[in-house]
Amino acid sequence: MLPRAVEAMTRILGDPGNAASLHGSGRRARRHLEEARESIAAAVGARPSEVIFTAGGTESDNLAVKGIFWARRAGDPRRRRIVISSVEHHAVIDPAQWLADRGEADLVLLPVDSEGFVDPADLRAELSAHASETALVSVMWANNEVGSIQPITELAAIAAEFAVPMHTDAIQAVGHIPVDFASSGLSALSLAGHKFGGPHGAGALLLRRDVDCAPLLHGGGHERDVRSGTPDAAAAVGMAAALTQSVDELADSMRDVAALRDRLLGALMDTEGCIVNGPLGSRRLPGNAHVSFIGCEGDSLLMLLDANGIECSTGSACTAGVAQASHVLIAMGMSTPDARSSLRFSLAPSTTEADVDRVAAVIGEVVDRARTAGMASVSAGDR
Amino acid sequence: MLPRAVEAMTRILGDPGNAASLHGSGRRARRHLEEARESIAAAVGARPSEVIFTAGGTESDNLAVKGIFWARRAGDPRRRRIVISSVEHHAVIDPAQWLADRGEADLVLLPVDSEGFVDPADLRAELSAHASETALVSVMWANNEVGSIQPITELAAIAAEFAVPMHTDAIQAVGHIPVDFASSGLSALSLAGHKFGGPHGAGALLLRRDVDCAPLLHGGGHERDVRSGTPDAAAAVGMAAALTQSVDELADSMRDVAALRDRLLGALMDTEGCIVNGPLGSRRLPGNAHVSFIGCEGDSLLMLLDANGIECSTGSACTAGVAQASHVLIAMGMSTPDARSSLRFSLAPSTTEADVDRVAAVIGEVVDRARTAGMASVSAGDR
Repeated sequence: MLPRAVEAMTRILGDPGNAASLHGSGRRARRHLEEARESIAAAVGARPSEVIFTAGGTESDNLAVKGIFWARRAGDPRRRRIVISSVEHHAVIDPAQWLADRGEADLVLLPVDSEGFVDPADLRAELSAHASETALVSVMWANNEVGSIQPITELAAIAAEFAVPMHTDAIQAVGHIPVDFASSGLSALSLAGHKFGGPHGAGALLLRRDVDCAPLLHGGGHERDVRSGTPDAAAAVGMAAALTQSVDELADSMRDVAALRDRLLGALMDTEGCIVNGPLGSRRLPGNAHVSFIGCEGDSLLMLLDANGIECSTGSACTAGVAQASHVLIAMGMSTPDARSSLRFSLAPSTTEADVDRVAAVIGEVVDRARTAGMASVSAGDR
Repeated sequence: MLPRAVEAMTRILGDPGNAASLHGSGRRARRHLEEARESIAAAVGARPSEVIFTAGGTESDNLAVKGIFWARRAGDPRRRRIVISSVEHHAVIDPAQWLADRGEADLVLLPVDSEGFVDPADLRAELSAHASETALVSVMWANNEVGSIQPITELAAIAAEFAVPMHTDAIQAVGHIPVDFASSGLSALSLAGHKFGGPHGAGALLLRRDVDCAPLLHGGGHERDVRSGTPDAAAAVGMAAALTQSVDELADSMRDVAALRDRLLGALMDTEGCIVNGPLGSRRLPGNAHVSFIGCEGDSLLMLLDANGIECSTGSACTAGVAQASHVLIAMGMSTPDARSSLRFSLAPSTTEADVDRVAAVIGEVVDRARTAGMASVSAGDR
């Protein structure tokens, strides 16, 4: 967490009125909450009334997918289709799949190319054939594994042309690249506090006022009656402080972090058997470096690097520990063994050249050890 | 928030690894999370694996009602009935009502007596007639408005006899009266951090391992695959610290708080036109004082008391600002005008005799002013 966010949040923890109460400390908490709503809205080009506070990115995605689906289908029962990309986060795929499993929805997956990009022509073809049966479109702003930044405004314009609401999981994008909700043409956008230096357990769904959305959490009618639950003013304030700082410093941080990323990718590519997954340059998230070391197990690499004080991830942290090849890499056309040899490094404004050089210094040996271990286990498996 | 909880939580905010990550800081966060899970389990007589972390009470209630309903109906489509008391919190009533409005469920409301108690005979009669069509029972442990402590183990025994899972909203009970999940015979129990001095945005559903529950938030498969989303270790640690302290000090705090409550109720009852709602004595939550001042508007009383530095609530804070008579008081047989004349005072271990005496000193004048204002508006309305 950014120190400024910790400080802002900690100040509220000591004075935690219930923002839904009418008395003095309730009104004070409400003021904190509404000020946080206003700064978040300002930072992402939204109106304050479009900000629905949630407990994080997973909740925002679930609310958008299921809530908009249910509201749209209630408006017209023929709207059974949910159109998503094949590289969405599980927080989008899984609720859509659940609706399909229950027999409520038909799930349509848009393909991606070898760099992880959706082709707008595919969305146009899909909606040309099925707009009246489509409840919603959901395509992420930027991919959480390989960092591809989708042509999101182009996709949103197509959805708008067919009058189908479009949601984006912008959890990797907000605070890292410019995001403007109003000019995006989107109906809904998910963001998560801990992705830009805010607290865990804090997120928001930006939701246009003219987009109907059934609540997932029913109760007191908080947050435009779309998300009930006692508001968490402290988390909202911490998230707002982190987002404001991230967006204020965005121009510099994007340039600096992208330069470090390219330095890191250069060092990794010097290692034998290394391939970079996803695009290079400005179509990639500045802080994302995702590579495969052919012949290695990603988990072995992760553990060896961790022992060297270097923390990275195989695929998505959210499904870490699951020994399954990433659906993102598979959708990009990679083989299962190659997909399982992947590592993701995340860089932030706090990353230094020394951090990158530390990775560069050890990666060769780490890969050698992992590859030897991998070959040993393969030949052991042969017996 | 209890200072100890603020301190415990703030410590984690400065070191927020992702508890789902495999690297060093991820494992450290995971350790914090699991230690919090263990202390919460120990404090409420549950096993650690029965603790599902959520973002608060509303989410816990929604997860129990909808999740268990969907799982039970998937097991047998005849199980359409949801049996709840007529004095549940909106976080239980509204998801049940939503399922009924969608045509998925049939909602059955158990009546209460004039003190807000469910009669176990009513539950027995209902299940004798309809057990095979019942998906779940949900009756709150203690009422959030009038403080009635339900005969929860007796009700749970009846549900168990008919092999119907029973959930309880114990959000008002945990940390305030003894709660033991294992010996309660319940299938599921909701609790919320901010009700016992923990942070907002933190809660848990205790869920027996043999009870199926569909997730509301799908994604990475966290929390036994029942509740996805990056774990909020800081909130869990803050909640655990608050709960441990509350339960450790429970015997003393119950005695002290109940004595203050009775002192407050005595002072309020000396005011003309005051009636106490809910039971007296040990069948009432120690910290709950709920009264009506006949002929007054609760909102006027609240504002006048707030101006005197006394913070109270009309009905439930969660629906504060909604000019509607409490469904709880109506279910107890009260008239709408009398229900609208109600105030709830909450007492905590930090409440002092001086606090109570301050209310006693001003309540007479406040009620006089509110009653005069009320009569003026009635006669103005007559014209």
